[in-house]
Amino acid sequence: MNESALASWSEARLARVEDALSRWVPADAPAGLGQAMRYAVLGGGKRLRPLLVLAASEAVDGNGEAALRAACAVELIHAYSLVHDDLPCMDNDVLRRGQPTVHVRFGQAQALLAGDALQALAFELMTPAAGTVPAAMQASLCRLLARAAGAAGMAGGQAIDLASVGLPLTEPELRRMHQLKTGALLQASVMMGAACAPQPLDERACAALRDYGAAVGLAFQVVDDILDVTADSQALGKTAGKDAETAKPTYVSVLGLEPARALAEALLERAGAALDASGLADVACLRALAERLVRREN
Amino acid sequence: MNESALASWSEARLARVEDALSRWVPADAPAGLGQAMRYAVLGGGKRLRPLLVLAASEAVDGNGEAALRAACAVELIHAYSLVHDDLPCMDNDVLRRGQPTVHVRFGQAQALLAGDALQALAFELMTPAAGTVPAAMQASLCRLLARAAGAAGMAGGQAIDLASVGLPLTEPELRRMHQLKTGALLQASVMMGAACAPQPLDERACAALRDYGAAVGLAFQVVDDILDVTADSQALGKTAGKDAETAKPTYVSVLGLEPARALAEALLERAGAALDASGLADVACLRALAERLVRREN
Repeated sequence: MNESALASWSEARLARVEDALSRWVPADAPAGLGQAMRYAVLGGGKRLRPLLVLAASEAVDGNGEAALRAACAVELIHAYSLVHDDLPCMDNDVLRRGQPTVHVRFGQAQALLAGDALQALAFELMTPAAGTVPAAMQASLCRLLARAAGAAGMAGGQAIDLASVGLPLTEPELRRMHQLKTGALLQASVMMGAACAPQPLDERACAALRDYGAAVGLAFQVVDDILDVTADSQALGKTAGKDAETAKPTYVSVLGLEPARALAEALLERAGAALDASGLADVACLRALAERLVRREN
Repeated sequence: MNESALASWSEARLARVEDALSRWVPADAPAGLGQAMRYAVLGGGKRLRPLLVLAASEAVDGNGEAALRAACAVELIHAYSLVHDDLPCMDNDVLRRGQPTVHVRFGQAQALLAGDALQALAFELMTPAAGTVPAAMQASLCRLLARAAGAAGMAGGQAIDLASVGLPLTEPELRRMHQLKTGALLQASVMMGAACAPQPLDERACAALRDYGAAVGLAFQVVDDILDVTADSQALGKTAGKDAETAKPTYVSVLGLEPARALAEALLERAGAALDASGLADVACLRALAERLVRREN
């Protein structure tokens, strides 16, 4: 699949995701909470995680409603983590996607609550009382997302991140931090798409998708670290050079720029090899997404 | 059921809940996150919500493993809300259950992450991959808890609370705030217990338990407001007189002390009437819990 085929594939999926998010993130939540939640979620973003869910689901002929709900849910978890991460007691960032961060716009207390409510909403979206999503699928999706978001996943990675500022990390320590902080949710996106399959996948396909998800998840962070030193704030839509300024260990600071680039390419190759080994017929979108992720410029 | 029978009933359940929480809240979460989570959860507390889950589940002959998981999950949501609520950008409280609050002990960033991770853990506990909890029950439990915790429940109520400081609320406005802020999670505790029934309950029992949960949920807050003016900090284990000091509207400030007491008694009666109408055989524990909640002194 070339870049233009991927673009038209993702355009159609993104339209569905944006429409669903706009319907499902409530405007009428009390006392301005809804506005803060919508500002956090609907302000753009690449929607990489939803696209991974949908691509994985399509690769396994997944339940379309379940996949759309899971895609939105994982994006809500990502969005809430950004809101909390930007707070003054965390990264204290004022710019996100080129706009004032949620606490700058709505105040810290409302930002905290909006993040909390977005996490709950993620699990609400995946457990509709009516519709076409079987209960067993709902439970599997909640299981995958809860584990990826919590102490053994994203939140745990952020705790390591917090504790690592200014410390000289080894490459394995840095890798573990990122596997949890960003890798777990990216990998879960793939596995949630897979969990939308009408029948549980065989172990070969499962293991291959897990490996693809792990490689893509790590590659994403390596590229993020590279872009933090090579791109400018305008292209990134957030403050560039922040990692060096705050003395955060990164793949560039630990490995150097060229070895970090080589690592990203190696991970892309590993992701492709995993897809080759999956035994799944239609993995072109997953393959193209991995490429786009490594070759992106913001 | 008299107070001593209730005491021995709850002692046995509390032992199970404490043991389960201690096993399920991970000590080994990275970079001190586990310590902060455990400090937030294992530091005591009345465990009213877990007891409501277990009493409701026993009233419907519920699945014991599901009920214990649900009981712990709802307590994790309650615990995370206290951690976030105590942060400087919210209530800025330094004392909770007679101990320094989580951010005083571990710093604001770790407190924020611990709260986030506890919310995820709640959904993780309710979706075990193995065990005796059917997938449909897992999905129902997640559905109930996600709705009660989010923008249409607890988080929404906190947003109203935040927006109401110093404002003259009417009694209906105050009631709505509390129905969301504390009532939704207390009512969900009852309904989660009910959702552990081996077969879905008939509509009569469901409606009765919903009404019991609503009455108990509101009574809890009315009594909380009364105790804030009549008890001292030592008995409460938190800062007494805080509501008046921060100009928060309360049932006492809106209704006056004696009418607030009368309202608490009326709600207790309504809870009892709902149980009478439920058609369920064994509601003695639910009845006794409602009484204890209204008659409590801290």
